[in-house]
Amino acid sequence: MSFDKQQFVHELISPNASKIVLLVMDGIGDLPNEEGLTPLMKANTPNLDKVAQMSDLGQTIPVMHGITPGSGPGHLGLFGYDPIKYQIGRGILEALGEDIEVGELDVVARGNFATINGDIVVDRRAGRPSTEESAKVVEKLNAHIMEIEDVKVTFYPGKEHRFVLKLTGEGLSDNIEDADPQKEGKPIKYTSALSTEAEKTARIVNKLLDRIKEVLKDEPKMNFALVRGFSKYPKLPQFPEVYKLKAGAIAVYPMYKGLAKLVGMTIIPTGQTIEDEIETLKQEWNNYDFFFVHVKKTDSYGEDGKFDEKVHVIENVDKVIPDILALNPDVLVVTGDHSTPCAMKGHSFHPVPIMFCAKHTRKGLSKAFNEFECARGTLGTIHATDVMNLILAYAGRLEKFGA
Amino acid sequence: MSFDKQQFVHELISPNASKIVLLVMDGIGDLPNEEGLTPLMKANTPNLDKVAQMSDLGQTIPVMHGITPGSGPGHLGLFGYDPIKYQIGRGILEALGEDIEVGELDVVARGNFATINGDIVVDRRAGRPSTEESAKVVEKLNAHIMEIEDVKVTFYPGKEHRFVLKLTGEGLSDNIEDADPQKEGKPIKYTSALSTEAEKTARIVNKLLDRIKEVLKDEPKMNFALVRGFSKYPKLPQFPEVYKLKAGAIAVYPMYKGLAKLVGMTIIPTGQTIEDEIETLKQEWNNYDFFFVHVKKTDSYGEDGKFDEKVHVIENVDKVIPDILALNPDVLVVTGDHSTPCAMKGHSFHPVPIMFCAKHTRKGLSKAFNEFECARGTLGTIHATDVMNLILAYAGRLEKFGA
Repeated sequence: MSFDKQQFVHELISPNASKIVLLVMDGIGDLPNEEGLTPLMKANTPNLDKVAQMSDLGQTIPVMHGITPGSGPGHLGLFGYDPIKYQIGRGILEALGEDIEVGELDVVARGNFATINGDIVVDRRAGRPSTEESAKVVEKLNAHIMEIEDVKVTFYPGKEHRFVLKLTGEGLSDNIEDADPQKEGKPIKYTSALSTEAEKTARIVNKLLDRIKEVLKDEPKMNFALVRGFSKYPKLPQFPEVYKLKAGAIAVYPMYKGLAKLVGMTIIPTGQTIEDEIETLKQEWNNYDFFFVHVKKTDSYGEDGKFDEKVHVIENVDKVIPDILALNPDVLVVTGDHSTPCAMKGHSFHPVPIMFCAKHTRKGLSKAFNEFECARGTLGTIHATDVMNLILAYAGRLEKFGA
Repeated sequence: MSFDKQQFVHELISPNASKIVLLVMDGIGDLPNEEGLTPLMKANTPNLDKVAQMSDLGQTIPVMHGITPGSGPGHLGLFGYDPIKYQIGRGILEALGEDIEVGELDVVARGNFATINGDIVVDRRAGRPSTEESAKVVEKLNAHIMEIEDVKVTFYPGKEHRFVLKLTGEGLSDNIEDADPQKEGKPIKYTSALSTEAEKTARIVNKLLDRIKEVLKDEPKMNFALVRGFSKYPKLPQFPEVYKLKAGAIAVYPMYKGLAKLVGMTIIPTGQTIEDEIETLKQEWNNYDFFFVHVKKTDSYGEDGKFDEKVHVIENVDKVIPDILALNPDVLVVTGDHSTPCAMKGHSFHPVPIMFCAKHTRKGLSKAFNEFECARGTLGTIHATDVMNLILAYAGRLEKFGA
């Protein structure tokens, strides 16, 4: 058996009363613009910079140098799970985030409403409908499609153009291709089985796609669906047991709640804004040892290539830093799950800035929190899977190894 | 089988006449004080800084990010042994350092004289008695306790409050818990077996603890003993063979001599001071390829939280640097086995400064030898187990890999 870092660390843990905040600004890492500034450098962040001056800075590699992670691997790594060992389908994440029960007979997948013209996908997000519009179409699908062969079919509404598909039945497998052409201007893509035991599932899904097309044929925009990330429920070591931490997750978007739930964190209900999230953090401060606080919009604006808006989100995060510090956390970690450079309009493989603010740091080397300072920080370049080890160490929760 | 770094490197070695000095300042890494200075930064070290200007600087991770190593793992890593693969009991290290023969029927352990009040351990080090005082109590134990059941019991004196316990007999195992409550104010802790074949050993040790308590009941301070790190003799690849280096160790404290002996280095007798050690280095210069020179006091003062004293030891080391350089070593490495921040009064997980002075370095980036310069040095952050590879490389002792 190969070396299991989590198991190794688990055996050194000695819990104490420390409080830990892991603040994840999704997709925070970026590239310099024409001025030579990244959003973190451009943003006016007196509070983050003050924290940087008390912190150990470094940069994380989410999966491996050169590898661009999805949200799943990005977060699993931060939570201490080797993202190559634990590969999680997108469907399961969406399902968990929407509080959908997933059992042993289920396969779930993430759906996007899309616009087709003939058989050509012209908009993979169907013009980004509102969550309410999209929910109505989900209702329509549920009313018209109950089962395919002996497999029960259920659709669950999601945010905007998204929904979750659940298939329930004997002999289903998640080992099938995404039914998504990935690019606009391409024809509808049917799925295919990646192993013989998945042939039934592939057949069901392809029949289902035809049924969806038929049921939605009169919808002006949401007249088709792309379905991907087919997945069964994976079994992961549970974070609270592995790290002996009562862990709460404060996140707005389903995906991140789903990820946190998958590793066994408690999902703490919160509002829609960063301020809401911090208010929740305050209210729940005494109830957990470890808080995962997720900020989504840094990634969203990175994905949209909106540099100024990303700067603005960072400045909003900066404004709540004093509220977090007022809670007097023993360890405050600020980082991202990956980089989402505005210039690339997507996730990237670049290292991710990170800082650990705690009592025992080599404070003083760095003046600000940004990609350049982090590249030259006291911690160097680390693997994301070492973040939890370091958090526990800064929290004084790890015994010495060996005599 | 997992990748064996030592074996890989071994096959590339081509010995030459180079001379190598690995100067280990135990626990050298530290944290900034209120002035923002670490002991290395505070110390006046013109010679170390001169070396830094000719060196490649970096920082090592002894075991894994966040993991605080004991002296064993700290040194094994520097010697190129994966400290997670090779886990060595403290007892064996102490025994080797004291020149105690350990055979196949033996289990050894490290003892601390302690003060108890009733059954409560009130001082885990019995007020730190002198080595002479402690030796007298060891004599008393040897006079009164020769065997328990069919197991021969021998006590060997150590430094200050420490001694070594050796049990000799059939069917002994080292798989038992430490008989040490670890904290003061707690009751005496008996051992227990961690596997069925260790039950006899656990029973013997517990009977022995009662005998020790009885024999020492009238001692004013050293009226009990804590015993831990039970261990049999481990088999390690031998350093001189793995690295094709005639290796000598110059160290004052038993633990470090023990570690060096365990990997097959020759222990060179020396005096008690840094100057004595360097004098020994000079005298033995022609007899070895590789010298491990160990300075203990940087760690001791770190453990005691004595910042100024740690600074002073560093300045003393700085004064002997010209003597080392006068020997014209091909490679001089200055580092520590781990960090021992004064503010933490103990080993820590923080990266450890390191510099490699040799003919072919990217000299010129760094101006001084300290934590901040090393964090930003030409080598970056490396694993301790890469130090020997680099030493061999700087010494010109490694062939090219592949055509």
